[in-house]
Amino acid sequence: MAGRTHVLDKGLAPDVVAGVLELTGEHVDVWKFGWGTAYLDHGLDRKLRLLRAHDVISCLGGTLLEIAWAQGRADECLAWAERAGLDAVEVSRGVVEMALDDKRELIKKASQAFTVFAETGRKDPRGALSAGQWREEIAEDLAAGAAWVITEGRESGTVGIYDGSGLPRQDIIDAAVSAAGAERVMFEAPRLAQQAWLINRFGPGVNLANIAPDDLLPLATLRLGLRADTAALSVERRRPPR
Amino acid sequence: MAGRTHVLDKGLAPDVVAGVLELTGEHVDVWKFGWGTAYLDHGLDRKLRLLRAHDVISCLGGTLLEIAWAQGRADECLAWAERAGLDAVEVSRGVVEMALDDKRELIKKASQAFTVFAETGRKDPRGALSAGQWREEIAEDLAAGAAWVITEGRESGTVGIYDGSGLPRQDIIDAAVSAAGAERVMFEAPRLAQQAWLINRFGPGVNLANIAPDDLLPLATLRLGLRADTAALSVERRRPPR
Amino acid sequence: MAGRTHVLDKGLAPDVVAGVLELTGEHVDVWKFGWGTAYLDHGLDRKLRLLRAHDVISCLGGTLLEIAWAQGRADECLAWAERAGLDAVEVSRGVVEMALDDKRELIKKASQAFTVFAETGRKDPRGALSAGQWREEIAEDLAAGAAWVITEGRESGTVGIYDGSGLPRQDIIDAAVSAAGAERVMFEAPRLAQQAWLINRFGPGVNLANIAPDDLLPLATLRLGLRADTAALSVERRRPPR
Repeated sequence: MAGRTHVLDKGLAPDVVAGVLELTGEHVDVWKFGWGTAYLDHGLDRKLRLLRAHDVISCLGGTLLEIAWAQGRADECLAWAERAGLDAVEVSRGVVEMALDDKRELIKKASQAFTVFAETGRKDPRGALSAGQWREEIAEDLAAGAAWVITEGRESGTVGIYDGSGLPRQDIIDAAVSAAGAERVMFEAPRLAQQAWLINRFGPGVNLANIAPDDLLPLATLRLGLRADTAALSVERRRPPR
Repeated sequence: MAGRTHVLDKGLAPDVVAGVLELTGEHVDVWKFGWGTAYLDHGLDRKLRLLRAHDVISCLGGTLLEIAWAQGRADECLAWAERAGLDAVEVSRGVVEMALDDKRELIKKASQAFTVFAETGRKDPRGALSAGQWREEIAEDLAAGAAWVITEGRESGTVGIYDGSGLPRQDIIDAAVSAAGAERVMFEAPRLAQQAWLINRFGPGVNLANIAPDDLLPLATLRLGLRADTAALSVERRRPPR
Repeated sequence: MAGRTHVLDKGLAPDVVAGVLELTGEHVDVWKFGWGTAYLDHGLDRKLRLLRAHDVISCLGGTLLEIAWAQGRADECLAWAERAGLDAVEVSRGVVEMALDDKRELIKKASQAFTVFAETGRKDPRGALSAGQWREEIAEDLAAGAAWVITEGRESGTVGIYDGSGLPRQDIIDAAVSAAGAERVMFEAPRLAQQAWLINRFGPGVNLANIAPDDLLPLATLRLGLRADTAALSVERRRPPR
């Protein structure tokens, strides 16, 4: 299984995106316009054309849809995203208070026009969910029509499946995998140590999300065992003669 | 009030600046060439032309003028900045030992040819000033002709109005606001959490400085409440049914 | 002595490299393609042409050669690097277990076709070497034909000559200098505070490595004393009148 890679764009200039895709387009599968940036991004049209040309799925960040939903404007937001030409949307309840029933309805609605990435996990560390809650939410999201599960980590890598210092919360990660199967989960993993931990745990085929565009080539080397942090993948360690 | 945004450039290539301004030029008001970088920046001319075309104020970093002053060459530095075509200079005493009387004279002199951003706060955490010292210095700076007050935070966000871990020092921030009024203060706020804290405290119209060029679009979303950290600005939180 | 500056490239687009070299090419001497990135970098040819045009030495990261050696394919790796047109290789034993005798042989072999940067230091903090081991290894590396000694710090600045929080390990740094002489050592120093510490300790002519491309102009200002962290180089601090 070739691991999927999902990038977090927080507002790159279109020329920069062109350069990133030219150099590393083969290593990226999904391109997320983080939170509400798509709505302000004057380069959106050109970026979407570039992404299409490189067969990369474009995805709207979840926070924008959450806020629109809380304002009673989810339909308006989805219609805008469809006109803009986005392929996918993230459906989350990381910021606003949204019941699971409401999330299910939103996933059903969104999946009529988009590939849906259903995110689990809160952005506020004080609202952390238990492993049981993760399992339940993920199962419901998939039943409602989500194509992918995405596990919260933010750009910082200090919430959701990580603790405040960025260390993986293994019980949560295990819960996500048991609920969805590793091949349907995309783990947000913005930090090198998190990417390496997940690759060493699940193999190079693990799906990784919220990768910074500059980290695409470094991540490709991690998957191949060509960086120290995952070198055990490519080399049998030899003991020096004594 | 539309909050002003002030960028810290530490040496971007001119093509990159062109891309940043094309994408986010409407979200930036002041462009600072950090510390002494302007003096070494081969792209200075082209960047200044780009900034003028986008109605962005160009500003010399304070450290260069401080050092020139300490060498007895302040006039020479200001003459160079004028020839180079910079619109504004920062007058600070964050690095060298400079009496308030000397700072006042330097502000008076500089304001003859430039918009003056007067900075308060030391770059060395061991030299931290008290709230009373901040109030006094800011009042004198404005009386001497400074157009704006800028509060120290550096690129790191760990000195001046922040403690060593980056948390806001509220007494200092309150002192700056009480001395100058919030609309004349630009808070250096390089970190997301600092930007969000200041926006949540003073509203989206707060002036923010030392923003990294890549963070301009993210900051614009923060001001609009389109990112988790300030989402309360755009949404009434709804409680899930129980 | 003009201090040498060595950049760590982890996968920049060629257009970005062109912009960096145009703006700051005079401030860079060595360009390292980090760990195994060169092997995946579709822009390698164009970057090498740009580097040659700016008289910058191109260097293969050490991890790739380490892994090839551990797989019994060091000759193959060196032949590939020669065909690719790289000027230099880093010979290290930071990841795999490699005896000093094996490292010596690899340096001898590599130095037939390349300038050799011999690296000392482990990438795993649990494998930290003593000052005596550093001295011994560096002496042997130079005897074997290494042109330069490079001291481990990684991209993170938290191993090798630094402790886990990024503070310099002075005994190790002193050992490296005593074994090779400061002018033959390149200190990996990815962080501003590390660069400033080394410049304040050894002067602006210290050789610094693993500099991020965006930090080249900032580093040039540090060497000239035009940033707060090294301003003592350019200014006699004046006491304010009391």
